[in-house]
Amino acid sequence: MAIAANVAPSERVTYEDLCTMTAAEARGHFRNGAYSGHTAGIAPGMLQGNVVILPADLALDFSRFCQRNPQPCPLIGVTDTGDPMMRTLGDDIDIRTDVPAYRIYEYGELKDEVTDISDLWQDDFVAFAIGCSFSFEDALIQDGIRLRHLEQNKTVSMFVTNLMTEPAGPFSGGTVVSMRPLPIQDAIRASAICARFPQAHGQPVHMGDPAEIGITDINAPDWGDPTEFRDGEIPVFWACGVTPQNIVRSAKPPFCITHAPGRMLVTDVPAWATDSKKLKS
Amino acid sequence: MAIAANVAPSERVTYEDLCTMTAAEARGHFRNGAYSGHTAGIAPGMLQGNVVILPADLALDFSRFCQRNPQPCPLIGVTDTGDPMMRTLGDDIDIRTDVPAYRIYEYGELKDEVTDISDLWQDDFVAFAIGCSFSFEDALIQDGIRLRHLEQNKTVSMFVTNLMTEPAGPFSGGTVVSMRPLPIQDAIRASAICARFPQAHGQPVHMGDPAEIGITDINAPDWGDPTEFRDGEIPVFWACGVTPQNIVRSAKPPFCITHAPGRMLVTDVPAWATDSKKLKS
Repeated sequence: MAIAANVAPSERVTYEDLCTMTAAEARGHFRNGAYSGHTAGIAPGMLQGNVVILPADLALDFSRFCQRNPQPCPLIGVTDTGDPMMRTLGDDIDIRTDVPAYRIYEYGELKDEVTDISDLWQDDFVAFAIGCSFSFEDALIQDGIRLRHLEQNKTVSMFVTNLMTEPAGPFSGGTVVSMRPLPIQDAIRASAICARFPQAHGQPVHMGDPAEIGITDINAPDWGDPTEFRDGEIPVFWACGVTPQNIVRSAKPPFCITHAPGRMLVTDVPAWATDSKKLKS
Repeated sequence: MAIAANVAPSERVTYEDLCTMTAAEARGHFRNGAYSGHTAGIAPGMLQGNVVILPADLALDFSRFCQRNPQPCPLIGVTDTGDPMMRTLGDDIDIRTDVPAYRIYEYGELKDEVTDISDLWQDDFVAFAIGCSFSFEDALIQDGIRLRHLEQNKTVSMFVTNLMTEPAGPFSGGTVVSMRPLPIQDAIRASAICARFPQAHGQPVHMGDPAEIGITDINAPDWGDPTEFRDGEIPVFWACGVTPQNIVRSAKPPFCITHAPGRMLVTDVPAWATDSKKLKS
């Protein structure tokens, strides 16, 4: 699928430039269609979010699903029904244009990938923002913990597990986890650090034997790339924001829009905030 | 309003007896109508909750209100529409019978106080449980911080403030706070301790000058009793679970049921749990 084919080359901005901007400035370029790539490293220290957009008749069940499953689905923002502005996460976030790229699903099937959903927006849509791992990865790196998938420029390994979510309405299924290999001392420190970020999946859900959570081959992830292990490292597993996407897809709603993988909503809320209120401007 | 007039005296159980029981055992007595009093000190260490029951057509807005205001409204559980069982907070919690006493509101007006709402339950009802201060008060006392209102057997002082909540649909208004006088050193320690209990309102929202949050007379609370101050003490203010009740009342929904003040839902979830999942039995 072609991405951002409608964007004039002259409007384009480089990833390196974006990394020097505020969240609001970066979103301006996403809005203008000047960038449709991944958001890791953009507006460091600011909370980023997975996005799920559903019709209102599924929104209460999805709210309940998030409330019941705060590790995979830490709900950081919800729009009013039909209102495209994500008011609690920034002063001017238009969820129709301010995410670099979107995926369109019908009855659980991927139909399209686009950079703007203005023409698809409907009066009964509700947009949900769910915390993502970029926030805690920042914190780990700043504390000197090395993350191999980033150093090797790969996508983190992700797996469906047998850690069942608490269902709500049509939404149910196994928790999806992301996996990072760490020496045991780093695994302990990472657990303590991540516990301070409940809005970004919090502490790991498992470490050690992958079979205990239903993973049969650690080198064959369900999403992302395989990750190299070195001597003395154990796999550490975090609840992952792909969980809600996977579960929404399984529920096969007539229509659903999500962000495209890695292309997150970048908010004006600090990742360390104890609640999801935006900074007062 | 007569409370529990339908309970035979032989079935009654004393508060002192209840304090020696598990949460499930205590709820059994509430269910049987044997006790309709306050729940402070019952099942110590277990999360207790404020209760708000609304028709489904208001439930999405109320969910959003809680998500946007996590300090006054830390959402710890939501039932499925029409399902009276609060499945995520215990193995056998029937929200129609397991709270010691309920208040019935019509268009924001208090109509009745009852100990059982089985005959009022409807297929479109959704019950919300919201964390309460009993949990953090336990933690403060165990750390040696003295709470005067408890020592003097009074109800904590509560005030409406000018700290405006983030609105959602018909729900909006000022945050209600509870106030406890503390020496400054205890106020600092209390802040650190309470920050560990985001499900029980978290850290204080203010300390010091009451006027800064719109309180004109610290000796004239809007709810509860006035609290004695001693030399060197400052007022410390926490977001309070009366906020959602007050805001729901102002929204004047055709029908709403809440717990009666102080008569909370006692759950099977430890107060220190990092999410609101019940312990596996």
